[in-house]
Amino acid sequence: MTEPLKVGVAGLGTVGAALIAQVARQQEALAARCGRAIEIVAVCARSRGKDRGIDLKKARWFADPAELARAPEIDVFVELIGGAGDPAHRAVAAALAAGKSVVTANKALLAKHGVKLAALAEKHHVALNFEAAVGAAIPIVKTLREGLAGNSFERIYGILNGTCNYILTRMEEDKLPFAECLKEAQRLGYAEADPSFDIEGHDTAQKLAILASLAFGAKVDQNAIYVEGISSIQPADLAAADELGYRVKLLGVAVKTDKGIEQRVHPTMVRKDSAIAQVMGVTNAVTVDVRGINPLTLIGPGAGGAATASAVLSDIGDIARGVRTAPFGRPTERLKSVRKAPMQRHEGGYYIRLLARDKPGTAATIAKRLAEQDISMESIVQRHVAHADTGAKAGSVPVILITYATTEDAVRKALAAVGRDRVISGRPQVIRIEKN
Amino acid sequence: MTEPLKVGVAGLGTVGAALIAQVARQQEALAARCGRAIEIVAVCARSRGKDRGIDLKKARWFADPAELARAPEIDVFVELIGGAGDPAHRAVAAALAAGKSVVTANKALLAKHGVKLAALAEKHHVALNFEAAVGAAIPIVKTLREGLAGNSFERIYGILNGTCNYILTRMEEDKLPFAECLKEAQRLGYAEADPSFDIEGHDTAQKLAILASLAFGAKVDQNAIYVEGISSIQPADLAAADELGYRVKLLGVAVKTDKGIEQRVHPTMVRKDSAIAQVMGVTNAVTVDVRGINPLTLIGPGAGGAATASAVLSDIGDIARGVRTAPFGRPTERLKSVRKAPMQRHEGGYYIRLLARDKPGTAATIAKRLAEQDISMESIVQRHVAHADTGAKAGSVPVILITYATTEDAVRKALAAVGRDRVISGRPQVIRIEKN
Repeated sequence: MTEPLKVGVAGLGTVGAALIAQVARQQEALAARCGRAIEIVAVCARSRGKDRGIDLKKARWFADPAELARAPEIDVFVELIGGAGDPAHRAVAAALAAGKSVVTANKALLAKHGVKLAALAEKHHVALNFEAAVGAAIPIVKTLREGLAGNSFERIYGILNGTCNYILTRMEEDKLPFAECLKEAQRLGYAEADPSFDIEGHDTAQKLAILASLAFGAKVDQNAIYVEGISSIQPADLAAADELGYRVKLLGVAVKTDKGIEQRVHPTMVRKDSAIAQVMGVTNAVTVDVRGINPLTLIGPGAGGAATASAVLSDIGDIARGVRTAPFGRPTERLKSVRKAPMQRHEGGYYIRLLARDKPGTAATIAKRLAEQDISMESIVQRHVAHADTGAKAGSVPVILITYATTEDAVRKALAAVGRDRVISGRPQVIRIEKN
Repeated sequence: MTEPLKVGVAGLGTVGAALIAQVARQQEALAARCGRAIEIVAVCARSRGKDRGIDLKKARWFADPAELARAPEIDVFVELIGGAGDPAHRAVAAALAAGKSVVTANKALLAKHGVKLAALAEKHHVALNFEAAVGAAIPIVKTLREGLAGNSFERIYGILNGTCNYILTRMEEDKLPFAECLKEAQRLGYAEADPSFDIEGHDTAQKLAILASLAFGAKVDQNAIYVEGISSIQPADLAAADELGYRVKLLGVAVKTDKGIEQRVHPTMVRKDSAIAQVMGVTNAVTVDVRGINPLTLIGPGAGGAATASAVLSDIGDIARGVRTAPFGRPTERLKSVRKAPMQRHEGGYYIRLLARDKPGTAATIAKRLAEQDISMESIVQRHVAHADTGAKAGSVPVILITYATTEDAVRKALAAVGRDRVISGRPQVIRIEKN
């Protein structure tokens, strides 16, 4: 039998600890499946003394991740430190330069330095695997890189952040306001003390940047993404969505258009009977629209120690079997600086919720402003009964508009004009509708 | 750049034609993703003259698939002939023996000869890939073999036959009887002229045998599977399921129990809010219960020329990249002859629909027979209004029972006793409930 694959792990948080426990538990099955044993021979973390509930006796301890990354006794460097900057960046670069394959779960690092690191991996003929960086245990990276390697992609979209999906699920189920659900998520450990990275959509954007690169051969570019979070969503929006046959999800969407690759993260209305609409709680899901065949949807745990470790281990297993795929699915020199499709030119249906002043002529004014921008209405609902949870104030009436396909630019211009007409109170709520 | 990978394709039906068209269309992307070009250099089919809408000028024509399989000019033999016997079997064996990697979409062949062919592939150090054999474009084989290689599986189940799912969907949506939906499926090309292989569950069983082997390291054994089809399902069952919060799906289920690996194919009640219950029409889906993490569900097109070709091409791509994984995920000598868990000992909830004679004492008699077998009831619904679509006859009342977890054996004994009591008319309908 071939020599065991020797692995060094930097970062012993929940993922690192779960990984080490899983390697120990699955030793025999892993050897059978990969054709050789997998051994964790070295580790590195900030605190050496901490009890992590795992056996580290056989692993050499390193204080510096970059030193571990270069250690002659390892074949593979597993980076579970996190963050786009150092020490993660320095350690991963050091490992690749030293000819070690790297497995990382670090989406921030890849979103920022992915192209350069992929080129470095290529130069040294080693693997750079990151299944765990998007959707944890969901094998979406492998599916795009290998499983659908012969296909042309039209669109990829997904629920990539469990925190947001948990909050939206709770808001919908119990008609609770955003702030309350966020607090609950924090209490349960689903949201960070500072939740803005998740709820403002940046976590989703980093993951989307990676998926878009894999699907469309684009250079990873987080800055090409339009990002909008979920903090403005109100129970009234979820109730209206429900009535209209939709659910609201925070989606990351990358789509090929004739203006370039459109990449966007925003609350989205998806049809209630679609696979992705059924995804509740912290679960993640990704749908891929493939040219010529019906869409493919992958649903599963998108976070958590064991789920993330499962993906890391699958990446290690590929290296053990001698598999090396180009990190972003094709040689780095063939990754394109893809034209960013401007958000103003986004085309689609829109849900618009306004608080209209309850006086004659208001509806006519709104209708006129929309017509001026050539926006056609699929439905208009005006409710005269003001419930507490509709967000209506005295003297104002909630109006919900669903448009046919139009452009972002037209919607923004129409709503700006409506604002100047002083026929509404507050800011209009706008949620894009995604066809699915 | 490495030499092109030279491929021979035997069988030019819809899948073969779609494959050749896709290779031509994706030439450049494939070369970028696989690190070398993929060329179809030889083909074989029954009729040479037929217009298939594809360009075959560059491919050498073979009349005998086994001759193509051994041809020195090919690296990979793609078998799209179908059927467990010859010529498919002989050709695949010939290719492997000649040291050619094989890609096949042939579930019947694998379900019958999978272990021997895998051993042959191993002996000659070549790949035997069959992503397309289960769930077509759904990358479930890759996910089990590689994506979840570090995990231990508890259960795998899925909607693996689009014909059955289409019929059940139509029956549910429009409250139509089975026979009518079958005819519709035949008219639309979703069902064969002789539909029994699909509707009696055998197609699902062959696919399940392959999945069970990949998940549990069992030797593929189609005969270890309990099989029941969907022809006895009535609109009344679907209506009752709906009321109870379930949907009826034909599932293939393989589950680790303390009595061995239970493998079964039968109509199944699944909770309406589960991912798999949302899968309608000809779409396929597979859910994997992985130890320690939440389940993973893959949904997508499970049949059709382009979807199947997509999977075949992904398998060819792996060979082009030099990837060779053990066909059933681990060395053939390590595949176990797994103990077959007898169906009588299956444990779970049951849906039972009876036509009870409308006379005093009937309910008491039924309740007594169930109690004798220690079967506890979760719910009993007796309807005195006999609709046309409940299947009720004059003088009889439909009774729907939902049991708590019990055994197959207990249910069969109780219903046999009820039968002997002559308090019901017709055969009781029994549908197993799958927790999900």
